[in-house]
Amino acid sequence: MPPRPLPPPRVVRGGAPDAAVVAGAKNARIVLTTDALVEGVHFDWAFSTAGDVGHKALAVNLSDLAAMGAEPSWALLSLALPGATAVDTVDALVDGLVEVATANRVALVGGNLTRSPGPLVVDVTAVGTVEPRRILTRDGGRPGDTLYVSGTIGAARAGLEMLKAGVANQPCVDRHRRPIARVRLGYAIARGRAARAAMDLSDGLADAVHQMAEASGCGAEIDASTLPVDACARQWWEARNTDPIVAALSGGDDYELLIAVPARWRGRLRHVRTRVAHPPLTRIGVLTKNRRERVLVRDGRRADLPAGFEHW
Amino acid sequence: MPPRPLPPPRVVRGGAPDAAVVAGAKNARIVLTTDALVEGVHFDWAFSTAGDVGHKALAVNLSDLAAMGAEPSWALLSLALPGATAVDTVDALVDGLVEVATANRVALVGGNLTRSPGPLVVDVTAVGTVEPRRILTRDGGRPGDTLYVSGTIGAARAGLEMLKAGVANQPCVDRHRRPIARVRLGYAIARGRAARAAMDLSDGLADAVHQMAEASGCGAEIDASTLPVDACARQWWEARNTDPIVAALSGGDDYELLIAVPARWRGRLRHVRTRVAHPPLTRIGVLTKNRRERVLVRDGRRADLPAGFEHW
Repeated sequence: MPPRPLPPPRVVRGGAPDAAVVAGAKNARIVLTTDALVEGVHFDWAFSTAGDVGHKALAVNLSDLAAMGAEPSWALLSLALPGATAVDTVDALVDGLVEVATANRVALVGGNLTRSPGPLVVDVTAVGTVEPRRILTRDGGRPGDTLYVSGTIGAARAGLEMLKAGVANQPCVDRHRRPIARVRLGYAIARGRAARAAMDLSDGLADAVHQMAEASGCGAEIDASTLPVDACARQWWEARNTDPIVAALSGGDDYELLIAVPARWRGRLRHVRTRVAHPPLTRIGVLTKNRRERVLVRDGRRADLPAGFEHW
Repeated sequence: MPPRPLPPPRVVRGGAPDAAVVAGAKNARIVLTTDALVEGVHFDWAFSTAGDVGHKALAVNLSDLAAMGAEPSWALLSLALPGATAVDTVDALVDGLVEVATANRVALVGGNLTRSPGPLVVDVTAVGTVEPRRILTRDGGRPGDTLYVSGTIGAARAGLEMLKAGVANQPCVDRHRRPIARVRLGYAIARGRAARAAMDLSDGLADAVHQMAEASGCGAEIDASTLPVDACARQWWEARNTDPIVAALSGGDDYELLIAVPARWRGRLRHVRTRVAHPPLTRIGVLTKNRRERVLVRDGRRADLPAGFEHW
């Protein structure tokens, strides 16, 4: 069992049955985000342990903060539990969450426990801080900005397909069960003013490109040959006659970052990469002037960029 | 339809699909709380409209902040919706929530929407601020402190009983459907340093007395003759040969405040009451030295204080 984190000094009163009291840093903006995992919608007990669910419930929220360039500080956990839930299950879920919290210096400062006559619902609110002029949003991109993506794409989707096919012990499966939020990278990019727009890939890269282009009033052109499709996922899809590019682009649950960087800020980005070398960043395309244009260039041909993953 | 609130100036970026960004007041502590309403556990569509559910989902969270003496500022809403939920239902729920937000100068700054294969789950996180030395908690009481309760008790429980019996149009029914959080009172008590401990009555007065005494390392003695049992509830129970004192003490969903006030602070409390006259405060008992003692004095006889309402 991982150790419970010591509350950082900014927690004035945590863990009490009253609401949590925390001290914000001077002049910092407070960033608030909430995201839920629902049994049967976002996870399946056949494929995830309680520890996996706790891990993911916090990671997806930290990913939202990372995309804003915020430093995460506090989290609240609200659980709606089916009557038959074993205490061990709740403990394992909380342990999985606390493990991610500890690794990211986040204090679990409060929560709520209630009964659910239906599925398990894990609702997490994460709170972070960011300096006012360092906030990253999805709408700051401009035509000509270069698009970069962190890490690899497609692994989580391939991992879920593997689990459904009864194949385990693959790196992809871990990416589905225990995604890593790019907290340090997002924070470093914001501090170094190295990107004009950012967002995370919770619904896949294609969706993120569409969203960022739409919010920024731009078009986008992606070069298929550059896409960092996860090697394990590529192998899996190629063996099944599935197009790895399309599958990886439209796969959900990649919690990587997409950023838009103007040419003259590349020095700043290089500087950030000297401090945060992992995950790598890959140049995948550009934002363009024509806001109706969302293009995937492949073998010299221009096609429509696929849509993203839809939860509904 | 009530008007959507204008975001207060402290909301830097609200309503964007990114996380919300807010600016905390200088030197203020941030108070975070989360509470959920689950269909079939906390509400029943036979007795509550979607607007009622939205109202209550925020009110119960604001009540937690009021008990800490915090001024509420922001809220996040996370909804897990059954597939068959009509858009009108979601709109009405959000409108009910926004109405309470507006009345309390709270900005709804973010949220999350997901599908539920089971019941509707409404999860709200409320965030407020409080000056460091003004925070109220349940554990500050000392032997000899006088206990006061705001408003009346028992109405919400009686209201639910009336709904189940098919009786409507009673003030009690409104207290069940649309509880009022004592936001201004809690904030005024904290600012005026008029109480040493406080908590809200979400699980009834008896439960709150037990919790405050336990946390403060005290006993408690309550005088039954002073209890402000709601008149409508009392009439309902008397007509049904139910003991109104026991029913009101152990009824849940009263969102009044219980406070502990040392004798020499009564001047401060009077001062608070000149500024916040409603709801009234009633003196109901004292905290005592013997921490094992939880007494209800009735007609000169001393009996054990009943337990509180249990959701599980």
